[in-house]
Amino acid sequence: MTDSTPRIGILGADGRMGRAVEAACEGRFDVAARITLANPDYESLSACDVVIDFSAASALVAALAYLKPGTALVSGTTGLSDTQEAVVSDAASRLPLLRSGNFSVGIAVLSALARQATATLGVGWDIEILEMHHRHKVDAPSGTALMLGDACAKGRDVSLATVAVQDRDGPRRDGDIGFAVLRGGGVYGNHEVRIVSESEMITLGHQALNRDVFAHGALSAADWLIGRAPGLYTMNDLIKT
Amino acid sequence: MTDSTPRIGILGADGRMGRAVEAACEGRFDVAARITLANPDYESLSACDVVIDFSAASALVAALAYLKPGTALVSGTTGLSDTQEAVVSDAASRLPLLRSGNFSVGIAVLSALARQATATLGVGWDIEILEMHHRHKVDAPSGTALMLGDACAKGRDVSLATVAVQDRDGPRRDGDIGFAVLRGGGVYGNHEVRIVSESEMITLGHQALNRDVFAHGALSAADWLIGRAPGLYTMNDLIKT
Amino acid sequence: MTDSTPRIGILGADGRMGRAVEAACEGRFDVAARITLANPDYESLSACDVVIDFSAASALVAALAYLKPGTALVSGTTGLSDTQEAVVSDAASRLPLLRSGNFSVGIAVLSALARQATATLGVGWDIEILEMHHRHKVDAPSGTALMLGDACAKGRDVSLATVAVQDRDGPRRDGDIGFAVLRGGGVYGNHEVRIVSESEMITLGHQALNRDVFAHGALSAADWLIGRAPGLYTMNDLIKT
Amino acid sequence: MTDSTPRIGILGADGRMGRAVEAACEGRFDVAARITLANPDYESLSACDVVIDFSAASALVAALAYLKPGTALVSGTTGLSDTQEAVVSDAASRLPLLRSGNFSVGIAVLSALARQATATLGVGWDIEILEMHHRHKVDAPSGTALMLGDACAKGRDVSLATVAVQDRDGPRRDGDIGFAVLRGGGVYGNHEVRIVSESEMITLGHQALNRDVFAHGALSAADWLIGRAPGLYTMNDLIKT
Repeated sequence: MTDSTPRIGILGADGRMGRAVEAACEGRFDVAARITLANPDYESLSACDVVIDFSAASALVAALAYLKPGTALVSGTTGLSDTQEAVVSDAASRLPLLRSGNFSVGIAVLSALARQATATLGVGWDIEILEMHHRHKVDAPSGTALMLGDACAKGRDVSLATVAVQDRDGPRRDGDIGFAVLRGGGVYGNHEVRIVSESEMITLGHQALNRDVFAHGALSAADWLIGRAPGLYTMNDLIKT
Repeated sequence: MTDSTPRIGILGADGRMGRAVEAACEGRFDVAARITLANPDYESLSACDVVIDFSAASALVAALAYLKPGTALVSGTTGLSDTQEAVVSDAASRLPLLRSGNFSVGIAVLSALARQATATLGVGWDIEILEMHHRHKVDAPSGTALMLGDACAKGRDVSLATVAVQDRDGPRRDGDIGFAVLRGGGVYGNHEVRIVSESEMITLGHQALNRDVFAHGALSAADWLIGRAPGLYTMNDLIKT
Repeated sequence: MTDSTPRIGILGADGRMGRAVEAACEGRFDVAARITLANPDYESLSACDVVIDFSAASALVAALAYLKPGTALVSGTTGLSDTQEAVVSDAASRLPLLRSGNFSVGIAVLSALARQATATLGVGWDIEILEMHHRHKVDAPSGTALMLGDACAKGRDVSLATVAVQDRDGPRRDGDIGFAVLRGGGVYGNHEVRIVSESEMITLGHQALNRDVFAHGALSAADWLIGRAPGLYTMNDLIKT
Repeated sequence: MTDSTPRIGILGADGRMGRAVEAACEGRFDVAARITLANPDYESLSACDVVIDFSAASALVAALAYLKPGTALVSGTTGLSDTQEAVVSDAASRLPLLRSGNFSVGIAVLSALARQATATLGVGWDIEILEMHHRHKVDAPSGTALMLGDACAKGRDVSLATVAVQDRDGPRRDGDIGFAVLRGGGVYGNHEVRIVSESEMITLGHQALNRDVFAHGALSAADWLIGRAPGLYTMNDLIKT
């Protein structure tokens, strides 16, 4: 009776990530709801154990009203307004909610390592972050690069906003975290944190070898999230257990 | 009588590069003139077979008047005004003059390879250039990165000015040559040209392992330049022979 | 009447590369023959304008007898005995025949650049070659790494066999070309030539971003080869034109 | 009265590392003993607060008899026989003794990160280790590469000896830790741990930018070790505090 295959809903089912997630569900999840702009049947979400969202801010907010308490929600949507952020945060009081800008397990591990390294290596070490993505990516730096920068800033007990430098111009100030961006061809996504002193350089890098990494990671997160207590989770919680 | 050690003059002898050049002269060149801001004895240059210049635009222009016709001049000074550029170019009618933003032989070779690669690889390949230098470097991108970008643009028969993108913002346009800059610690100077299609990436990279590379390269240029006909030369001429 | 879609035969049609080639034919080639071990209908090859071979040495040799004079043959099969090599070389007197261990256009370009760089950079520069492939690859170093090593050796006018070092043990001898091999995960294929002196390092790298690179390259070679004079060709001939 | 500059003894004072250590002592340590093969005045060690050893196994063993209880000993000598190892280990009952194959702080941090990463990332991730050093280095892989491999093995709760693969030959076995070695030019020392799954790759890298890194690290270790309880310490203890 129990132990049945979990029922999953996909929000943004016709997007690139939505389709990759659906393809990766085979044998692991039963796709019980497929929400698209053309077919916004939000009601079908009420029958799901878990919902994966790669849609848009407005669709995510609209969907929240249809989720039964305790439904797990994995969301990769970014670019929410302050009001939308507040609505989503509120939902975490009745749902287990895991949000991430990058569902790769490797990036979650790298982020943890970057924080630890910058906490250990203090004065005299400079931090720079480099990312490269395919030619179609519009935003820069990537959300993942900013997430890695945030991890480094946390390691140093400072706020990223006060130290981030996106356009290098003039001399480097102590404590800066610099960002550099490359775009081209079909690169799935490369990230690198460089931590460098007068006489040595540490590099912490990550490369997505294909697109499956994100879909599989989102499903691993879904699997892990079902049945957990309401609250806000991240990929970091996943790799700790 | 003949075959004596060549007499060299160093313009900017107390700067970081000037001192490295002087140290590297031992056994190869006889240092006959040392011009500094505090001791601007330009007259001593008239006794030199070759002059190496790592000073400033105004010092370079001032020195030209003291060089005897046929004196070889190797100059690494950048940032000249249009008027200063004209004066220096004029001097090439009576002096063999080699100018470069980077005296590394490896960079000269890489630049030639980058031009050849971009001439061969046409539509469908994107070009991006990355550089990293120590935390004290002020200008960005480096002169060498711009030189590599220029080589890539020449390979495509376009002007770098029309395709260079220094601050990535919004989608990539076909034909863009993007630049990305990292600064930190004691990195001597790393450069990388990435040429990337939908399914493959070529990287052409260079790393200075220590500072000697530039001083030794400048002296190799000096050695090569003595006795040549007046005219404007580059490091490219050096690696062809 | 003329200008019809070329008819292609695939030798080894059920292998990984054979299937990728067939998928990439759509709209460009008409698949007129599909030869597999289970269905070795070599006679069907006689109707083809071009044959692409990713099979085994014995299948390749067997197929040669069925090709009409002038049929273009693109072959990626390696590991032939001396006798088999002789038979295939003979066939080049009546067929245009292009053989390569790697059909990536990027690798062909990199190989040409490596040869040119090592011809320019003489004494005092050491050459090392690094490759990484997925965990299932059995041979080491890869055929492509050896091909890059051969290009470097040719640049220096030496035979690779006399300078190749696959197991680093003891001090480096002048002139050595060293090979290093990494295996793991799903890496499609990375190659890097490092040319390094006392004070600088040049790296010439290539990364396959996905598997399509080889199938598309083989079809580009097929397209280029149809109608050429009999003889032995390589990917280098392709990138020159 | 107290708080005077600590007195240091250098064992192997005329070697490359010994000289670099002496140069780096200025203003931090008072060099009270300089032991060389030509001048093996071991007695002078008895006046030292700390001894730094970059000599040879036999010299290290000989020196132990002259150290007063409580003298700090920092040793970078490797290649001890089992008997010599036993003598040195015994000494740790009366001396604070820190041994390392690499005194870079960055390598110590990288080693800790590698262990943590491999402990988190289990089945399905392959580990490979790559190192590059200058053309004069004789042993391969480097002691540091083996140390990083050991950290990775510890993260997986296995013994490095049972999983290390130095000459890649045939297919990769699950659990292997592969080593690859490059030698050339003047590269001070680069190390890289690659952890790779079917769809992503994590790289943890380190680069020595100049030779000072090791001398400064050894003196940091010396500074930290003076006054500690007898026992065996590593660079890991240093970065934890």
